[in-house]
Amino acid sequence: MRTFPTQATPKPLPPAPEVELKESRGYRLKHKLLGPPLDTEALEHERLGIPTALAVFSSDCISSSAYATEEILRVLVPAAGLAAFSLVVPATLMMLVVLFFLILSYRQTIKEYPTAGGAYMVTRDNFGLLPAQVAGVSLLTDYVLTVAVSVSAGTAALTSAASPLRPYAVEISLFFIVVIAFGNLRGVRESGRVFSFPTYLFMFMMGLVIVLGLYKAGFGHLVPQSIHQKGMIKAGTAGSGFLYGIGIYAFLHAFASGGSAMTGVEAISNGVSAFRKPEWKNARVTLIIMGVTLGTAFLGLSVLSTKVHAVPFTSGTPTVISQVGKQVFGGGALGDSLYYILQAGTMLILVLAANTSFADFPRLASFQAADAFMPKQLTKRGQRLVFSNGIISLGAVAAVLVVATGANVARLIPLYAIGVFTSFTLSQSGMARHHIRKKEPGWRWGLVVNATGAVLSGIVLVIFAVAKFTEGAWIIIVLVPIFVALLYRLNHQYEAEAEELERDAEAAATAPILRRHVVLVFVARLDRAAARAIQYARTLVPDEMRAVHIAIDRHAAEELAANWRRLGLARVPLELVDCPSRRIARAALEYVAAELAGGDTEVTVVMPHRVYKRFWHRLLHDRTADEMARAMSQLQHVNVTQIPYHLGAPSLTVEQVQSDGERMDSPHA
Amino acid sequence: MRTFPTQATPKPLPPAPEVELKESRGYRLKHKLLGPPLDTEALEHERLGIPTALAVFSSDCISSSAYATEEILRVLVPAAGLAAFSLVVPATLMMLVVLFFLILSYRQTIKEYPTAGGAYMVTRDNFGLLPAQVAGVSLLTDYVLTVAVSVSAGTAALTSAASPLRPYAVEISLFFIVVIAFGNLRGVRESGRVFSFPTYLFMFMMGLVIVLGLYKAGFGHLVPQSIHQKGMIKAGTAGSGFLYGIGIYAFLHAFASGGSAMTGVEAISNGVSAFRKPEWKNARVTLIIMGVTLGTAFLGLSVLSTKVHAVPFTSGTPTVISQVGKQVFGGGALGDSLYYILQAGTMLILVLAANTSFADFPRLASFQAADAFMPKQLTKRGQRLVFSNGIISLGAVAAVLVVATGANVARLIPLYAIGVFTSFTLSQSGMARHHIRKKEPGWRWGLVVNATGAVLSGIVLVIFAVAKFTEGAWIIIVLVPIFVALLYRLNHQYEAEAEELERDAEAAATAPILRRHVVLVFVARLDRAAARAIQYARTLVPDEMRAVHIAIDRHAAEELAANWRRLGLARVPLELVDCPSRRIARAALEYVAAELAGGDTEVTVVMPHRVYKRFWHRLLHDRTADEMARAMSQLQHVNVTQIPYHLGAPSLTVEQVQSDGERMDSPHA
Repeated sequence: MRTFPTQATPKPLPPAPEVELKESRGYRLKHKLLGPPLDTEALEHERLGIPTALAVFSSDCISSSAYATEEILRVLVPAAGLAAFSLVVPATLMMLVVLFFLILSYRQTIKEYPTAGGAYMVTRDNFGLLPAQVAGVSLLTDYVLTVAVSVSAGTAALTSAASPLRPYAVEISLFFIVVIAFGNLRGVRESGRVFSFPTYLFMFMMGLVIVLGLYKAGFGHLVPQSIHQKGMIKAGTAGSGFLYGIGIYAFLHAFASGGSAMTGVEAISNGVSAFRKPEWKNARVTLIIMGVTLGTAFLGLSVLSTKVHAVPFTSGTPTVISQVGKQVFGGGALGDSLYYILQAGTMLILVLAANTSFADFPRLASFQAADAFMPKQLTKRGQRLVFSNGIISLGAVAAVLVVATGANVARLIPLYAIGVFTSFTLSQSGMARHHIRKKEPGWRWGLVVNATGAVLSGIVLVIFAVAKFTEGAWIIIVLVPIFVALLYRLNHQYEAEAEELERDAEAAATAPILRRHVVLVFVARLDRAAARAIQYARTLVPDEMRAVHIAIDRHAAEELAANWRRLGLARVPLELVDCPSRRIARAALEYVAAELAGGDTEVTVVMPHRVYKRFWHRLLHDRTADEMARAMSQLQHVNVTQIPYHLGAPSLTVEQVQSDGERMDSPHA
Repeated sequence: MRTFPTQATPKPLPPAPEVELKESRGYRLKHKLLGPPLDTEALEHERLGIPTALAVFSSDCISSSAYATEEILRVLVPAAGLAAFSLVVPATLMMLVVLFFLILSYRQTIKEYPTAGGAYMVTRDNFGLLPAQVAGVSLLTDYVLTVAVSVSAGTAALTSAASPLRPYAVEISLFFIVVIAFGNLRGVRESGRVFSFPTYLFMFMMGLVIVLGLYKAGFGHLVPQSIHQKGMIKAGTAGSGFLYGIGIYAFLHAFASGGSAMTGVEAISNGVSAFRKPEWKNARVTLIIMGVTLGTAFLGLSVLSTKVHAVPFTSGTPTVISQVGKQVFGGGALGDSLYYILQAGTMLILVLAANTSFADFPRLASFQAADAFMPKQLTKRGQRLVFSNGIISLGAVAAVLVVATGANVARLIPLYAIGVFTSFTLSQSGMARHHIRKKEPGWRWGLVVNATGAVLSGIVLVIFAVAKFTEGAWIIIVLVPIFVALLYRLNHQYEAEAEELERDAEAAATAPILRRHVVLVFVARLDRAAARAIQYARTLVPDEMRAVHIAIDRHAAEELAANWRRLGLARVPLELVDCPSRRIARAALEYVAAELAGGDTEVTVVMPHRVYKRFWHRLLHDRTADEMARAMSQLQHVNVTQIPYHLGAPSLTVEQVQSDGERMDSPHA
């Protein structure tokens, strides 16, 4: 026997045989849909520059400005009537203070944790695994909701403009999910390229609305509309029009509603590793641009809403942003065109906000999976180096949510911001702890920033949870602990398996072999498949070898034995076993068990495996052989070898196979 | 190496190891539901005596009398008004002539073909395979329709009496199908026992109605009702009331409609082998009893219908038999009770008529499968010796039909009698040919009987097909040839496979072994599962052996190699293969292909196979090992051996396993 020394480092695959091995049809389809596979080394090059990163990571955050003002007004108008318009800007400013500290806090996080992970990593590092799972689950929940909310809102923007499409809201939302998921499966650079245009279009149009709106407002060209139009939410009674007539609770409720604008702020910190080098610096710059853009858009829209007296409608359309845009751009061909472009931009960025989640969810899930707190499959990079399983899971769960709620944004919003503020609070507290522990240069300033961020996030979280509790927030408050408990169960299982598999593994690897080796060839009839199995068995050098036929039909069995004797297969004599119960798999199991009963025996079961060319050919035969193999594999030291025999086509032998295309796994194909 | 001589006859299984092997949960459930398994020898004892056989085979045929008269009137009344009542008895008598010759014909068949098979066997024997498939498909189609029609009609009988159940007609029908299928899966003797009561109840009640009815009619106690009640089918105009005013075509159409009474006549000839010995004699007696019963009930009901002027309702309820019963039994507590018993008997026998098909379809399908004109799985006898796959297939297809038609009898009836009359014609023609060929004693008389039977069946078939063509008969006329073509395609596939597998099989079995044997142990990491695989590999005596690790993570690979060297596993050195594309299965395939490239090489691939205790544990791991095995099995001479390692539970080793019940496969459990 020829042996080799054990290698120290991996060597490349041996040169492929001259004739190519054919790829499966499924793989060729995947290859066409997703593009050529990327080698692991390409991971380094799949990084994002600032402009692309801004598009990939900030569409969620920036697009929130499209509905945050509306969410504030939705609380204020019923409580305060016209006085709402003197309260919306203060509420917005308060939320911008929170935003300011969040941005400052995350600047710290990005620098201290540049290998990414955001809230999950920071919390795990500073508080341990349990709080980290809470942060992780909160964020994952929120990502799912982001996808559902964003595509539903985007669809609503579309169907407001194109009313005949309204009955198909669910189908359109699902279509958007599929398109975005597909884009992400193709890889992150491509998705950045595809998604840049809408983000920048929206940013440009929002800038235009705000500049033009403030200009017009300065000259008194914006006329407040009636706040009692049909379909609008009902303004509070005259009595509540008094400025201080609304309770502090209602105001805080309104303020908390603005918190939906904060979803997505953490996206960059979760994805620092996706940036070009130096990662943390590029990420910081992108973070600042994103924060400024969001703040400007949010505040500008709130200010303009007070000028035109924009009031949300119960049905959701026309939206506040649409009311503002219509007034600011005025009528006429140019004004109408600009208005439609604004609406289109809003729709696109809302739909693509879902993309942020598709960038973050799989990455976060892979971190948790690497810690054995999520199914391991989520750590696997697909053909295009993205975490395909995470992308598909996110798409599927979001699709279920869209179908379950009928793509209704109003039913999803109250579930929304809790997860993200939970993770803000945990991650900023973690950062504060980090500063206290590490005491690196400038840690006092960092501590102030992160502690303030943590306290502010915590306050918003409590206000939001209380104010939105009955509207649906309770679902999240109930679900998160349940999921965390499930993840702990999962983790326990992984740990137990690893413990069992690794216990004394090295000793087991050098354990002596068993005293006796028996080879049993199970044959149903004597055909070429069985002949192959016999030929293989004869290459083995066991202590004992025989063929076994389990007889259902006595006559056929005796005929088989007669043929066998005639052929003189002396090295593999045939044993016939009667099976009156017709339970072949059971009989095989009992036969092999009896063989083992002597103890210290290794059994090799050799079975012909007929491989059919087409699926329907396979359906024409029962699966008794598979059943037998499964039954016998229940016994330790019974090792089933399947000897393939390929029907209908010459099987893939190196000489015989020809490819019908070029080699598929080359990245340059 | 110890060897044994090849055995001549099957020997029993070796005595089971002292400790029992545990049965799977699925099997224990099956065992509980279906009863203990029956040994093949028990087949002989599972035969039917005449009383049971009459119940098993004739419920279809006899129950037809419950609707045959109605079907005739359904054609006659709209065409002829009151004159219908002078035409229904002649039409019935004409059909009884057909019945008479059919019974005579089948007496011949039963004697000449006592090993069963009925139309299929007779046609195959005398005309060859193609006409036999036509007969087979026609009959199988008809069996499916019998199930659908019978349970739907039975359900209609029930829901006419219990109107709150009407919205659940489909569910009730499906329930009946499940119950009957289940009864049949438990075995034929049981099903006979269960089903005797309804058959005899119906026979008794029909006898009572006819005797009492004729007695009352003789004394003029039966009063014709109005034939223009709400819901009845519309009687023809006054003009058509004239006796000879209706065309010969309408009369023939009515006559053919009565043909639905003939379905089921062939049942006994298909199942001669299920009778107690002497089979053919018992079968003949049963056939005569059945024919007389059907003829009496059919004629009696037709006569009585003219006395009470029973007219079908468009909705199907109340039925003609119910109208007759009501009049004959009169009012009062006794009359009402008898009427309800009649209705119950009718319902039960209609539902159980489906049972005839469950007895016949699987048997016929197994004959066709034995000729390779149906999937081979249909030849397999289940736990209780019945053809389980056939029973389940019939139940499933009938259930689909019931759901598709909403359990509506009217939509199914026009598809109904074509198949059975096609098979009558083919089988009686076949018998005629048989007499001419064999010229056995008495063949002239047999020829006359069978030729007449064939001609009469053929005439009814043509009339039925023409008259019912647009009502749905065309579906069957289109489907039968399509199915026959599909069965030929299927047969061709089986023949091609057998030809390929058996070509030079004996030469292949004695072919020399390959020059070189290489063992490759694929390991992902070094755990107890991998250790087992290595231990097994070391029992083999190949020309060359090594372990292979396909490296996705370079660092982990190098660590593995370091451990390997430390353990000094010299006989199984480790080779690391770089896999930048992360396509492990593909890399394994290419690696093994390169190994084969030298030619004349047999490769044994040894893979650890981690067996998880619970389904969800398995879900937590990807299936890379299975993918690798599948990919490598594409290559001839690559033989994959899976070394089971059972997690979480001590695997079934003979010493360790304990059963939680008594031994399951004993018929005396």
